[in-house]
Amino acid sequence: MLDWLKAEVFQANLDLVRHGLVTLTWGNVSGFDHSAGCAVIKPSGVQYESMSARDMVVVDLEGTVVEGKLRPSSDTPAHLELYKAFPAIGGIVHTHSVYATMFAQACREIPCLGTTHADHFNGPIPVTRFLTEEEVRSGYEKETGKVIIERFAGMNPSDTPGVLVAGHAPFVWGTNAADAVQNSLILERIAQMAMGSFQLNPAISPLPAHIQEKHYQRKHGPNAYYGQKKR
Amino acid sequence: MLDWLKAEVFQANLDLVRHGLVTLTWGNVSGFDHSAGCAVIKPSGVQYESMSARDMVVVDLEGTVVEGKLRPSSDTPAHLELYKAFPAIGGIVHTHSVYATMFAQACREIPCLGTTHADHFNGPIPVTRFLTEEEVRSGYEKETGKVIIERFAGMNPSDTPGVLVAGHAPFVWGTNAADAVQNSLILERIAQMAMGSFQLNPAISPLPAHIQEKHYQRKHGPNAYYGQKKR
Amino acid sequence: MLDWLKAEVFQANLDLVRHGLVTLTWGNVSGFDHSAGCAVIKPSGVQYESMSARDMVVVDLEGTVVEGKLRPSSDTPAHLELYKAFPAIGGIVHTHSVYATMFAQACREIPCLGTTHADHFNGPIPVTRFLTEEEVRSGYEKETGKVIIERFAGMNPSDTPGVLVAGHAPFVWGTNAADAVQNSLILERIAQMAMGSFQLNPAISPLPAHIQEKHYQRKHGPNAYYGQKKR
Amino acid sequence: MLDWLKAEVFQANLDLVRHGLVTLTWGNVSGFDHSAGCAVIKPSGVQYESMSARDMVVVDLEGTVVEGKLRPSSDTPAHLELYKAFPAIGGIVHTHSVYATMFAQACREIPCLGTTHADHFNGPIPVTRFLTEEEVRSGYEKETGKVIIERFAGMNPSDTPGVLVAGHAPFVWGTNAADAVQNSLILERIAQMAMGSFQLNPAISPLPAHIQEKHYQRKHGPNAYYGQKKR
Repeated sequence: MLDWLKAEVFQANLDLVRHGLVTLTWGNVSGFDHSAGCAVIKPSGVQYESMSARDMVVVDLEGTVVEGKLRPSSDTPAHLELYKAFPAIGGIVHTHSVYATMFAQACREIPCLGTTHADHFNGPIPVTRFLTEEEVRSGYEKETGKVIIERFAGMNPSDTPGVLVAGHAPFVWGTNAADAVQNSLILERIAQMAMGSFQLNPAISPLPAHIQEKHYQRKHGPNAYYGQKKR
Repeated sequence: MLDWLKAEVFQANLDLVRHGLVTLTWGNVSGFDHSAGCAVIKPSGVQYESMSARDMVVVDLEGTVVEGKLRPSSDTPAHLELYKAFPAIGGIVHTHSVYATMFAQACREIPCLGTTHADHFNGPIPVTRFLTEEEVRSGYEKETGKVIIERFAGMNPSDTPGVLVAGHAPFVWGTNAADAVQNSLILERIAQMAMGSFQLNPAISPLPAHIQEKHYQRKHGPNAYYGQKKR
Repeated sequence: MLDWLKAEVFQANLDLVRHGLVTLTWGNVSGFDHSAGCAVIKPSGVQYESMSARDMVVVDLEGTVVEGKLRPSSDTPAHLELYKAFPAIGGIVHTHSVYATMFAQACREIPCLGTTHADHFNGPIPVTRFLTEEEVRSGYEKETGKVIIERFAGMNPSDTPGVLVAGHAPFVWGTNAADAVQNSLILERIAQMAMGSFQLNPAISPLPAHIQEKHYQRKHGPNAYYGQKKR
Repeated sequence: MLDWLKAEVFQANLDLVRHGLVTLTWGNVSGFDHSAGCAVIKPSGVQYESMSARDMVVVDLEGTVVEGKLRPSSDTPAHLELYKAFPAIGGIVHTHSVYATMFAQACREIPCLGTTHADHFNGPIPVTRFLTEEEVRSGYEKETGKVIIERFAGMNPSDTPGVLVAGHAPFVWGTNAADAVQNSLILERIAQMAMGSFQLNPAISPLPAHIQEKHYQRKHGPNAYYGQKKR
């Protein structure tokens, strides 16, 4: 079942490696099929070199394996919480990409310091709080999803397609698996550039709001004119 | 028309990727033909892997598409302003290359800290001001070109073939598209080296003027003796 | 003799290069066979390109060459001390990998700043003291091993599979040569991420203990559930 | 003439690029034949891709071109001064490699912070003074060589096979062209590691003298035991 989605998710996992966002097996991508109500996700701890599309695991929203011989990624419960809470998204990526993780470890949000950021994320990239002992005990990965959702109260996850989990690393999403991978790469570059700008100017101010707004809207607004016309 | 220039501009766009100056589609190169009064530029938001020389778009100085099926880069109006104001240039590059963008975001010019800089840029690499709300509203990309031109009042754009747009990223130019790409790579390395030198010595002084002058003149002056004799 | 171990150690040495952990010949891997009481180690100062599995040198725990035409790595006595003191380990790696070496030179331990660290190392990555003049004189490489063992008094080397030798570089170990190489790569990434997190937040606190514990145990504890079931 | 040396120098120039030490044409290698009293050096400003061993230029110690159709590197007079003053050396490299150049621009010597440094350079890597206006006017490249020689008064260039020219970049040497290239790569890594160690500990002390001495002597002293026996 969902062979098309397995193919997409498999390719997206490989692209994550190709973009240099993954060391060893520290990354996973899932995709979601709204009609089937199922997610397809990378198996846990499997080497990328020996993985094939058929190894992708199909799980329902409760985390039950619907198809697949391997264990799904240990982060599956976090992915599922996000699919339940953010109905507009169709793909999720989790990595420990180096620069985004530096910010997550330092518990610092990434303010919008330039148009590269404004082109893709509408406002700062937020940081969650740490999970409590009780949350860690009761279901660590599921609670990781919940703490992200808590952080997005009053925010539109389509405008800000990613978050830094405090002391951990980024979770990033998109309309599908490939889009989520692209947003992960963008977040990593934004984080790297922000590191350097902070070094050059520790008291740096965010990009003026009217320029932030312009850049985001020219790519994502109702009158977007970046790129080619959608067919 | 202008097939030779399409070939040049196409190759220059690929070289930008090869030099590691571009993430995703964050970069564009144009070339200008003075006799035709037309620029050739990359199409907007097209993947480099699927692009061919025939996809390059020909536009006149008013921005009207003279030939080409795709939309030109959304930054086209900025390129055209520069071709109109700086008649000596024949190629323009815009990237969000990582180190140069760090300086642009921090709104810090890059002083001449060493001979690598002095060999290629005569003096600091300047930063523009931010665009006003009115400028953003009335034509963002065109006004980006104008704010660069304003910054170069009293300066020779051939001596300083690039600029950092505040909160945005570099624009770099040259005698043709390939030359502009080379200057983009040079700017990126200069920016990286300057980052490190500032870290080692926050109170660093610029290179003494007599050494700056010597290096620039031995490559670009009337008695230049670097490289082979031009045939 | 021990051809299987020579093949493993040879491959592990190549992997070290492939992961970007080695400049020139600044790295060596050994493996240990408990039944034979012998270690297999890279020859000293030999280029990786011209090396073959047959060049690996077999030494006993006293450092006597049991088989092999080439001199073993000059660091062999350090490896042997560790095999004698840490009976649970089966592979050792020594590199001058860039980020881990920055910490070793600065004599700073790497605290656990995030889950990447907690997934693999249980607690901070320690730094040894400097060797004394007497220790340097009496047998530098052997004493390097001893100063590591001294630093691990009261610690479990399987929980913390690596150390920074003050003013020198990391030594890392594992259950076999391949595992030790993987731990070396992990240490290098942890060190790089810690550099950046310190830059963003010089007063950064370690990851809360309950999250550290959770991450380490889900991968390494008795009820570990990360990865696939061991067959 | 000197075809063997042209082949060596050509290969050494390519190796410089392969090691990532060169951007564009910012690097040159020469080799010296003591019996002929001639140096072989890279031509000026020629692309590495289109260069062949036959393009290498033979010059005598006065800088007269003895063989070759192309202009020698503009830095040739600096190389020749060093060959005249340092009779033990047989190869010289000049690059603008990124990390070493950061130190040169910041006019900071690189103290010996670890054994990587101590293994290859006996003591700090020194910085020259800036050239005076008079020196720049009278023969910039030749005076660059002289200011290096001045800095090495009382020092042994074989113990410290490289220097940072203030505001410029490194010059590195060795027993032949390949050895000089290797020392350039080592200097670059040492510089990168020192950058990071300074960031982690701005008040860092040099490696204790007894460890510096040990590491240098085990590789370069009369009783060196690193590597294989010389045949």
